[in-house]
Amino acid sequence: MRVEVIAIGDELLIGQTINTNASWMGQVLSMNGATVQYATVIQDDEEAIIDAVDRAMSRVDVVLMTGGLGPTKDDITKHTLCKYFNTKLEINQEVLAKIQAFFDARGKEMLDVNIQQAALPVDSTILINDQGTASGMWFEKNDTILISMPGVPYEMKHLLVDRALPLLRERFEMAAIYHQTVHLQGIGESYLAEKIKDIEDDIRAAGIGLAYLPSPGIVRLRLTSEKTEKRKTEIEDFIKKIENRLPKHTFGRGELKLSEVLGELLSTKNATVGCVESCTAGGLSSEIVSVPGASRYFQGSIVSYSNELKEHFVGVKKDLLINFGAVSEEVVRSMAENGKRLLNVDYCLSISGIAGPDGGTEEKPVGTVWIGLATPNGVKAKCFLFGDQRDRNIRMSILSAMNLLRCELLEINF
Amino acid sequence: MRVEVIAIGDELLIGQTINTNASWMGQVLSMNGATVQYATVIQDDEEAIIDAVDRAMSRVDVVLMTGGLGPTKDDITKHTLCKYFNTKLEINQEVLAKIQAFFDARGKEMLDVNIQQAALPVDSTILINDQGTASGMWFEKNDTILISMPGVPYEMKHLLVDRALPLLRERFEMAAIYHQTVHLQGIGESYLAEKIKDIEDDIRAAGIGLAYLPSPGIVRLRLTSEKTEKRKTEIEDFIKKIENRLPKHTFGRGELKLSEVLGELLSTKNATVGCVESCTAGGLSSEIVSVPGASRYFQGSIVSYSNELKEHFVGVKKDLLINFGAVSEEVVRSMAENGKRLLNVDYCLSISGIAGPDGGTEEKPVGTVWIGLATPNGVKAKCFLFGDQRDRNIRMSILSAMNLLRCELLEINF
Repeated sequence: MRVEVIAIGDELLIGQTINTNASWMGQVLSMNGATVQYATVIQDDEEAIIDAVDRAMSRVDVVLMTGGLGPTKDDITKHTLCKYFNTKLEINQEVLAKIQAFFDARGKEMLDVNIQQAALPVDSTILINDQGTASGMWFEKNDTILISMPGVPYEMKHLLVDRALPLLRERFEMAAIYHQTVHLQGIGESYLAEKIKDIEDDIRAAGIGLAYLPSPGIVRLRLTSEKTEKRKTEIEDFIKKIENRLPKHTFGRGELKLSEVLGELLSTKNATVGCVESCTAGGLSSEIVSVPGASRYFQGSIVSYSNELKEHFVGVKKDLLINFGAVSEEVVRSMAENGKRLLNVDYCLSISGIAGPDGGTEEKPVGTVWIGLATPNGVKAKCFLFGDQRDRNIRMSILSAMNLLRCELLEINF
Repeated sequence: MRVEVIAIGDELLIGQTINTNASWMGQVLSMNGATVQYATVIQDDEEAIIDAVDRAMSRVDVVLMTGGLGPTKDDITKHTLCKYFNTKLEINQEVLAKIQAFFDARGKEMLDVNIQQAALPVDSTILINDQGTASGMWFEKNDTILISMPGVPYEMKHLLVDRALPLLRERFEMAAIYHQTVHLQGIGESYLAEKIKDIEDDIRAAGIGLAYLPSPGIVRLRLTSEKTEKRKTEIEDFIKKIENRLPKHTFGRGELKLSEVLGELLSTKNATVGCVESCTAGGLSSEIVSVPGASRYFQGSIVSYSNELKEHFVGVKKDLLINFGAVSEEVVRSMAENGKRLLNVDYCLSISGIAGPDGGTEEKPVGTVWIGLATPNGVKAKCFLFGDQRDRNIRMSILSAMNLLRCELLEINF
């Protein structure tokens, strides 16, 4: 089942609203084995609608339209669809009764514009909306189906899942799709491609889809195939190969975040963690705590942004700060070690770096970040060189620190 | 200037990534007087790309494409565009040198796939990318322009704003639009509408556009008109009226973030700040530090997530924790007061709350947050009741704390 999603609305085109409907529909449809081939946003304008509908009807099996069904004047979808499908509007008594009940239940008076919402195309199947006053409409022409739904997210979701999908399943063999995603930290897209070149060739040769989904500090690899037990096993095997080759980088699968993986590990080991942060200024701590229930393992942190606090509050010796600078192996080791004691935790991560835009030198350019880790068995430290963007450097530092601790807990060589 | 935005990427169609690029571009383009008529998402497939490009080239003045320019194998945009525009790829030496420098700066080896990123269409204007290794490409055919950019948001933003827009301005009469935005913290959209009803009526009667742009904890009001001196003055007057009516809430204009406004105030007063955070766990500190140069005023923080640290590290008396609970006026006052001394700062913000999803009681439901502020003249505290969503509660707490300090510095009654 090939699908095109068409959203109508100027607010989407001028960026006032983000088109989350399209991505939600894309998820639900691809999970159900449909292929969303196009997602289009057009203006609330008769010519644009007819043009987009005509094109969509010629290239997919099912067109899903959202938006333009509200009671206000700028919504012309219904009239335009009548024109395109050569039909006319008539008051649908069942729908009218439902709209009346909807207003009665809220103690509000039904206005004429609301009565007009019961005026529906004669030659369409009406999809009854239990969540609002705009009905869904199912049209057909030359074996292609067009379903028009309101743009309000919860009404659209209700109509798609409860009304449209059951009817579509009767008409289409909805092939089930299987996909699995593996997440990697601390390796760039091109480096990764180089490292798994042979596995990637085998994946593609096996006819399994592979996509690289990069974001700062993380690359997700998605493998996709039709849903059969054989394919599932094949994908599982390929992912295991990648994980075995890159254990330092592959931290999880599916929807798991690194902070969740880390939280699980700490909980299992009954270990506590704290941080001493400089350039990330609390960002590492708040990322660790973004997981509900983090109080089981996270105790607290010190943000020692100024050198005075590094010295007088964290207890980093003044001569270390003077001789090696705040961004140095010696200082992050001392921060981690002292933090472990002060915060009374099993593991203490420390970060000191030059996030930018200022503060870089030839020897230590912007993007230089030292990360320390105090463990029950001693202190480690590692230097990273990220880029020249402040936000990105902070994000990469946070992810690298969490991954360093993950590897430590799993005894993976970092 | 009529625009079509085309995004290439299966991850957008299956809903794994939300198409925020399109909405960002829609905003920037409409602010610059361009009309985005279509936003399309297509598969990473030669036929789909050629088909979409051909159609777009026939119906708008400028086509802006994003995505499909990464170094990995699933990216075919560049080759397809060469085919469509009947040109070929050649290594661009200037770009190659930049890519080499990019890797050198990061101390990494340049791979063959990266060298291939310097292979660019001969008959196109190359838009140099200072933020990454994928160049922008500017093609022309029958007076229509197509600009291809990488899909990574910060690279796309850089190429559009710094490279493409200046060139487009030379070619198109970009109708001048004037707009000014005022930001409000701590007031909901409908409550705000009620408070400024008369001003809003006057704004609309004057023919000036008004949009409410809400996000958690912040509402932005955007006033838009054609760009004339008269309109500028009118908009300025309306915004002043809103600011005079709601000084506690209106914290800034334009693109300014609350953390920047606060940073400016602290710098001007030569005052220092620190935090003692519980439920926000470093989020307040990292938000304050998100402003470059924050080291002028931000000293550091303590994240006392556990009650042990609140007691033994911050020095909150045990009987306060037992008698009033960690989320109480008494405890945040003590956290702020002790933090001011421990961190040696002029102002210390403290936060303790129940972010959820667990931990709520009948008396203190999820969303209850106490915020304290120690100043040179004493300690204040205020209670907030947000909602039932963890992320949102943390975000609202951070913004409310910053606004509390802003009002204190400006002697506005909070």
